[in-house]
Amino acid sequence: MNGIKPSWKNIIFVVSAPSGAGKTTLCDKLQTEFKDIHYAITATTRAPRPGEIDGKSYYFMSLPEFETKLAAGGFIENAVVHGNRYGSPKAPAVAALADGCDVLMNLDVQGAAAVREYIAAAPPGDPLKRPLVDIFVVPPSTEVLRNRLVARGTDSLDVIEQRMQQAREEISHWKEYKYMVVNDDLAEAYDHMRAIILAERHRIDNRREDYHA
Amino acid sequence: MNGIKPSWKNIIFVVSAPSGAGKTTLCDKLQTEFKDIHYAITATTRAPRPGEIDGKSYYFMSLPEFETKLAAGGFIENAVVHGNRYGSPKAPAVAALADGCDVLMNLDVQGAAAVREYIAAAPPGDPLKRPLVDIFVVPPSTEVLRNRLVARGTDSLDVIEQRMQQAREEISHWKEYKYMVVNDDLAEAYDHMRAIILAERHRIDNRREDYHA
Repeated sequence: MNGIKPSWKNIIFVVSAPSGAGKTTLCDKLQTEFKDIHYAITATTRAPRPGEIDGKSYYFMSLPEFETKLAAGGFIENAVVHGNRYGSPKAPAVAALADGCDVLMNLDVQGAAAVREYIAAAPPGDPLKRPLVDIFVVPPSTEVLRNRLVARGTDSLDVIEQRMQQAREEISHWKEYKYMVVNDDLAEAYDHMRAIILAERHRIDNRREDYHA
Repeated sequence: MNGIKPSWKNIIFVVSAPSGAGKTTLCDKLQTEFKDIHYAITATTRAPRPGEIDGKSYYFMSLPEFETKLAAGGFIENAVVHGNRYGSPKAPAVAALADGCDVLMNLDVQGAAAVREYIAAAPPGDPLKRPLVDIFVVPPSTEVLRNRLVARGTDSLDVIEQRMQQAREEISHWKEYKYMVVNDDLAEAYDHMRAIILAERHRIDNRREDYHA
């Protein structure tokens, strides 16, 4: 008993949500509360937009850099979106896990599926062979989602219609996730997000193999 | 999507802990916060002690009453402790589940094992065939446990030694549980307990079969 170390870390959390569900706000709040979660940053070949910071918003890379890294097995998952390459670099996640942190990846439905596949296929020695906890954040209804996108005032009705169609497609994948959080009230949704993280850290299945009773 | 009802109820929570781990305080706090959790009351044949209320502290029963109920399959689990019969009545739990509540059972290691067995063996139509989430509350160390029992001042050193031996035996079963909460700081341990309840309510596996996307 005296040997039990209550450290249930080294979990890989994946958060997905249709645009407008409030994922970014929720993840920002998690980052503020949980200093022992490493928030994974995506690498991309697209050009930085004004205000974006390399190594914070994204890791900005040239196409040859990206391809070299990809060929070396440097990404957990990668994809092409609107002609640009995106990928989740392995090295920072591995370093964070070695530091005893959890990792939080903010991914779309395809990215989440790719990470699930990677971890399932990873051999036991792979430092990314860790418990994967995926959370799907949804708006209370598609009506509410449409109203939020309209209220945001940044997209034309055509673009909103495209986003709605994409959202419906994404939402159809909800059963692939372990958890679903309905973001109706932000404070409540956040309470549920943090509860999932705390609870998973107390699951006996998720304990590190190097701790014993 | 519009059809998703975020009701992830009807979970059976089981909490076990060695004496002195703080289980009662934690469960009382849960009862205060979660009005939609039915706190299961144990039936017993032992005589009420001063201040104990029938239907609140315990359901007090005569031995014939207990045996009739037992023969009728009225208990989820039952045991003999110091010559007295104890059992968890089915009917209140079934009624609470039908009302859309979760159920919380406060059980020792043997009781928890019996409930696990009951639910695993229950046929699909049984109203108690619900997700079972068992939580083991432990003190940060056996040293701390001994100090707490001494500080409580209610037991002789002999009795404390017995409790310690019993605690060590109980703690040896920690791997049978889904979650372990170390009660070092009470507020923190409570935050972890409530997190487990909230998180389990958001697990997609735990959804009621009668809700659909």
